[in-house]
Amino acid sequence: MHIAADSDAASRYVAVRAATEALALPLSAEDCCVQPMPDASPTKWHLAHTSWFFETFILEAYEPGFRAFDPAFRVLFNSYYQGVGQQYPRPRRGLLTRPSLATVLAYRADVDARMRQLLGRADLLDEAPALAALLELGLQHEQQHQELILTDILYLLWCNPLWPAYSERWAAPAPGSEAPAWQRFEGGLVEIGHKGAGFAFDNELPRHTVYLQPCELATGLVTNADYLAFMADGGYCDPAHWLAEGWDWRRDQQINHPLYWRQEGQGWSEFTLAGSRPLAPQQAVAHLSYYEADAYARWAEARLPTEAEWEAASAAPGAALQQLFGTLWQWTQSSYAPYPGFATALGAVGEYNGKFMVNQYVLRGSSCATPAGHARASYRNFFPAAARWQFTGLRLARDVK
Amino acid sequence: MHIAADSDAASRYVAVRAATEALALPLSAEDCCVQPMPDASPTKWHLAHTSWFFETFILEAYEPGFRAFDPAFRVLFNSYYQGVGQQYPRPRRGLLTRPSLATVLAYRADVDARMRQLLGRADLLDEAPALAALLELGLQHEQQHQELILTDILYLLWCNPLWPAYSERWAAPAPGSEAPAWQRFEGGLVEIGHKGAGFAFDNELPRHTVYLQPCELATGLVTNADYLAFMADGGYCDPAHWLAEGWDWRRDQQINHPLYWRQEGQGWSEFTLAGSRPLAPQQAVAHLSYYEADAYARWAEARLPTEAEWEAASAAPGAALQQLFGTLWQWTQSSYAPYPGFATALGAVGEYNGKFMVNQYVLRGSSCATPAGHARASYRNFFPAAARWQFTGLRLARDVK
Amino acid sequence: MHIAADSDAASRYVAVRAATEALALPLSAEDCCVQPMPDASPTKWHLAHTSWFFETFILEAYEPGFRAFDPAFRVLFNSYYQGVGQQYPRPRRGLLTRPSLATVLAYRADVDARMRQLLGRADLLDEAPALAALLELGLQHEQQHQELILTDILYLLWCNPLWPAYSERWAAPAPGSEAPAWQRFEGGLVEIGHKGAGFAFDNELPRHTVYLQPCELATGLVTNADYLAFMADGGYCDPAHWLAEGWDWRRDQQINHPLYWRQEGQGWSEFTLAGSRPLAPQQAVAHLSYYEADAYARWAEARLPTEAEWEAASAAPGAALQQLFGTLWQWTQSSYAPYPGFATALGAVGEYNGKFMVNQYVLRGSSCATPAGHARASYRNFFPAAARWQFTGLRLARDVK
Amino acid sequence: MHIAADSDAASRYVAVRAATEALALPLSAEDCCVQPMPDASPTKWHLAHTSWFFETFILEAYEPGFRAFDPAFRVLFNSYYQGVGQQYPRPRRGLLTRPSLATVLAYRADVDARMRQLLGRADLLDEAPALAALLELGLQHEQQHQELILTDILYLLWCNPLWPAYSERWAAPAPGSEAPAWQRFEGGLVEIGHKGAGFAFDNELPRHTVYLQPCELATGLVTNADYLAFMADGGYCDPAHWLAEGWDWRRDQQINHPLYWRQEGQGWSEFTLAGSRPLAPQQAVAHLSYYEADAYARWAEARLPTEAEWEAASAAPGAALQQLFGTLWQWTQSSYAPYPGFATALGAVGEYNGKFMVNQYVLRGSSCATPAGHARASYRNFFPAAARWQFTGLRLARDVK
Repeated sequence: MHIAADSDAASRYVAVRAATEALALPLSAEDCCVQPMPDASPTKWHLAHTSWFFETFILEAYEPGFRAFDPAFRVLFNSYYQGVGQQYPRPRRGLLTRPSLATVLAYRADVDARMRQLLGRADLLDEAPALAALLELGLQHEQQHQELILTDILYLLWCNPLWPAYSERWAAPAPGSEAPAWQRFEGGLVEIGHKGAGFAFDNELPRHTVYLQPCELATGLVTNADYLAFMADGGYCDPAHWLAEGWDWRRDQQINHPLYWRQEGQGWSEFTLAGSRPLAPQQAVAHLSYYEADAYARWAEARLPTEAEWEAASAAPGAALQQLFGTLWQWTQSSYAPYPGFATALGAVGEYNGKFMVNQYVLRGSSCATPAGHARASYRNFFPAAARWQFTGLRLARDVK
Repeated sequence: MHIAADSDAASRYVAVRAATEALALPLSAEDCCVQPMPDASPTKWHLAHTSWFFETFILEAYEPGFRAFDPAFRVLFNSYYQGVGQQYPRPRRGLLTRPSLATVLAYRADVDARMRQLLGRADLLDEAPALAALLELGLQHEQQHQELILTDILYLLWCNPLWPAYSERWAAPAPGSEAPAWQRFEGGLVEIGHKGAGFAFDNELPRHTVYLQPCELATGLVTNADYLAFMADGGYCDPAHWLAEGWDWRRDQQINHPLYWRQEGQGWSEFTLAGSRPLAPQQAVAHLSYYEADAYARWAEARLPTEAEWEAASAAPGAALQQLFGTLWQWTQSSYAPYPGFATALGAVGEYNGKFMVNQYVLRGSSCATPAGHARASYRNFFPAAARWQFTGLRLARDVK
Repeated sequence: MHIAADSDAASRYVAVRAATEALALPLSAEDCCVQPMPDASPTKWHLAHTSWFFETFILEAYEPGFRAFDPAFRVLFNSYYQGVGQQYPRPRRGLLTRPSLATVLAYRADVDARMRQLLGRADLLDEAPALAALLELGLQHEQQHQELILTDILYLLWCNPLWPAYSERWAAPAPGSEAPAWQRFEGGLVEIGHKGAGFAFDNELPRHTVYLQPCELATGLVTNADYLAFMADGGYCDPAHWLAEGWDWRRDQQINHPLYWRQEGQGWSEFTLAGSRPLAPQQAVAHLSYYEADAYARWAEARLPTEAEWEAASAAPGAALQQLFGTLWQWTQSSYAPYPGFATALGAVGEYNGKFMVNQYVLRGSSCATPAGHARASYRNFFPAAARWQFTGLRLARDVK
Repeated sequence: MHIAADSDAASRYVAVRAATEALALPLSAEDCCVQPMPDASPTKWHLAHTSWFFETFILEAYEPGFRAFDPAFRVLFNSYYQGVGQQYPRPRRGLLTRPSLATVLAYRADVDARMRQLLGRADLLDEAPALAALLELGLQHEQQHQELILTDILYLLWCNPLWPAYSERWAAPAPGSEAPAWQRFEGGLVEIGHKGAGFAFDNELPRHTVYLQPCELATGLVTNADYLAFMADGGYCDPAHWLAEGWDWRRDQQINHPLYWRQEGQGWSEFTLAGSRPLAPQQAVAHLSYYEADAYARWAEARLPTEAEWEAASAAPGAALQQLFGTLWQWTQSSYAPYPGFATALGAVGEYNGKFMVNQYVLRGSSCATPAGHARASYRNFFPAAARWQFTGLRLARDVK
């Protein structure tokens, strides 16, 4: 794992931390406190937990004379690190009206001041490569929570019948610039997984060889117009398109359109971070579950790509794939599993990825909510098949006959 | 139903409304927004709903040129009045980060200004007795929500592992001043139900005759020390003391002490509006479910009084009953049911009480959280048997052999 | 508690026990084994539990050299007597494919042989009045389970899409013979509760005085035709008729007609012990929940009677009430509660009634499934408000204006 | 898909069908009727559904003058084929006391007679290869249900506190014959998937190339003694060994030993088809969930094999792997997913496998309950990660450092 040169570390730290707080600016203390469902955490919790990460994994280990900002936070803002100790239950994060947003911001400021002091010590990062790695991990972790702040607040605001906007200025990602087409890839022996000196999460390693059959991938993402055609053709009503588990999920949850769509008169609107907007036909269809993505693909006589196909195609010379990054995460048919030779880090930080490798599906690319520079071709995002509140879409694949 | 003279109505309105807002003063906007369980509403919702009551039932009917402060509030802050229309679902009240607390306070100010203008019209109340009755009902309703603000915020703060105090100055009710004793009542034909010209809810009417057997009531409430003896004797572990449904409830919820008690070392503390406090042995034991109150009574070779016994005893000449009002609501063994000849008001306001008369139990008296002047001997409070977050205690009764 | 003379006891025992087994004759071993919901027990379990009652409460105490038929049965067939020890969980009764039906019938035969031997001892019942009382309680208990065998098997067969009949010869109770009318009762001081030397359950005692307002009761039960008018008038769709809890129950369970009704073309059929039958308009409407009975009554500008009204009216001289017994149990608005001075028997048998006195409503009369001679005017049946699988109907009451 | 020569088809049909009925012989009609949990079907249902398969997919298409044995069975015994029409809900299969076991056996006899008549027509299978394929699929399907009859009845009998044996003569599979060891496989390009002319399910196709890293597989299965060491080392109490979802599952279900184990004094017993037996240390540990298998593997500093590793290793020349077949199904870390180029059959029969390819994990090999000749190296069994009632065990794998 490679990290930034010493001179850059402190300023990168400052920039990433500031970006998180900027995301909270349009929100009131009330907005930041409430938890709309167990999977979606309050903004305030995200603000605190990301600070907890630096305090627990770096300051506690490296700061001379370390004293916790508030010892209670060790439990309150521990997400899931059993190695650190107890955790306040996830579904109850929204009950924490105290500490207040102001106190959490003070917590952030305190951690930042101490981190800057630590990072100011000459040669520290060179002498302590483990610290350098943890620093980078903390910043990458913070960027992941930046995206979660947006997905979680979108869900909260959507629960409000007033449909308030997060920010009127939020801009939807541009539609694909060209007509969709199929791009062929020959397969064979390819390498996937992270390569090179830049940062990568442990789950992207080790780089390894896989053998792929030839296939075709769509150059663009499935659009709202495409998806409306699926719906108009009774796509939500015909079990032939659906995984059995997806069909039951659809029936039990009474689902018949993407999460944030709403019928208005003859047309559809979509709830976005900019508020409710008329559905834009050429934009990529968003906030689909794996089940819906898979059903659409079957209906379209195609399938979801595997993550290896996606990664190999994204790196193929001459590939014309659009919308790989910055629009929507793209469901793959690959269950989230360890790469051959996968090993976790020692200690509690080793719980970061590995223990979630069951009953989740890999998403590739990145979304309009992903911080710039955060993602890469080998990046493996993952969510359960029923998740819809993330910025999830799909790119079709098909076998070469 | 009798109401205050015209000249007093406006000032009484102002006083009651101000008292509600005073209760919110120790709370942040975050505290006011969150809903810790479906039964406990956010303070902000209470602030808004009580205003909705005046706006919907009085201003909409009597204000010239009525315009709603915000038409969306008609649904958002309708608690359960089917006759008014749809209601925003109760378990989701805590998701309403918008309207903000500031907006809700502006809503209150707007309603108050319009109400004062309305009440300032000479002779209006005399000419419109229905309005006068609605005004008084609205104020009584607001007082009921004043108590709920306290019970609901206590529950919320208790959910927080930091156990923040609502107000350090909150004072527990004084213990009973005399040694407990049994007071005998002869029974026979007695009258219960509201009498006289003062306000009463419809469920206190009509006053009617009941025939009672002789009985004895305890002069004081069961204390923490009493209840500790029950616990020390294995009271929570012996099914012989419990209603079958209570025993299952206790087992499924893993309940073995009153709601807000917590063992600390060898002793117990109790979470209160003033924060966590050592358990005071002589104070009345609080926050019991009906099941616990009933089990304690059986263990003590006594029983819960009926509501008729309670009311008759409270009015008996020479009665030495203490702690009737102002300490804790007292469970009775009486299911909440209509009095003979009970009739509801016409229109949506008729939904106030009658439709809840099933599977709830009557509590009599009043609590330390009840606004001064709100309760009376004929007052019928009611909650389901499992409810513990109200200020509930018990007074024993027994048959005369 | 009075019981039969010695010479009659044995023959009465034989007759009651034989009647139970006769009820199982139309059923296969499979029919007798399955449990369709937690509230409805398998026939085999009823056959065994009623024998367990005699074995546990009589043979174990009075039989010289008592040895259990099978020690495991002490737990398996204990319904809810904590005083006897552990109970096999009620919702799992249907998993007991062993002991087989044949073994359970052998268990019955063994208990019967030992009971007959015991009862054959001269003067035993005179010398042991407690035994005599237990014997009568056991027989009354067995009769209660005779009715439950019918209600539970009806529910099971209704779950089967083949709608098999329990017995083609099962005859519905005759409709009321006269036009419905209101019968006035003057109220005042009346006595209710069991009187005289015959058997009564502890919950019918002590007989005591109550004061009643004047009221009117319908001479007959509400009919299917009456109920169809309620439905045609949108009775299931208008919350104004419903208790709040009933309205939510109706919505959550998607209920819009009585339990065993089914629309067929333009008409309705009803599933009965004789199989599916066209709905008979003049028969009493059956299998209603308390919520439905209460909603119908409000719609009809009436109410449910109290249990005291029902009992007093049934005993009034000159009363013209029909269908008091033998058609359907009649919901009252009375919550199941102890009579003043109520006391339970000592020991485990004291759990028979008292511990269920919460969140249930009293039904009076008896049904077409009640064994002849079992019920009486003071009899108090009770079920939760949502129960519909019993033979429940309603008789209207109203206040005298 | 290759099938048996014409002359053999009828006798093979008879043999497979008879084997199913032989499994039901030790069971009473009651045993055959009850459903202990939604995942485990009654024996009677298995007997009927396997007949339904032949009647629906073969007789209905090929029998001249086809008439259903009972038209209601088309829905009652349709497991999950949406293409055939409605299905009686799976969790309610145990409510079907009718049709009786006798009727279901008559149904089997009728289907068998008609099938034999059909199969007796000269050259039919040669002329109708689709029929031949369906016949073989039906027989393979029936064999799968033979195993399910055993797993489901084992679960039912275990629910009974009397712990009755299915058959005293049921013999546990022999332990591995040699000391466990690691066997190395070099990986590289290998082919997996069905090859050759014999029958295979669609999910084993197409045969295709995969690239494997070198690895080591254990020559035998993990034993009860091994697993006891894991437990003695606190394996169920240390989250470090567990997938996060597995840890929550363990906590919520209060799981701390394999499904059918029970502590007796100082030792353990295991419930088997032969009844309760002292735990045999050298036998393979059975009835583990994926979560438990994975936790054990981490504790043992190993991992689960992938299905490709398992299949390649089983076919490797010189491989010394024991207990591949006939002891226990072996969890792999591979999520159940389509092979590259996977295609389902046309029509309802195409629902056989493909629609279940989400949130399940592949098991390889076969178990002591699998009919002889049914499984093969390319066979893909699959169950959700929490499933424990199947005959599931584990074989360790590890990376080559």
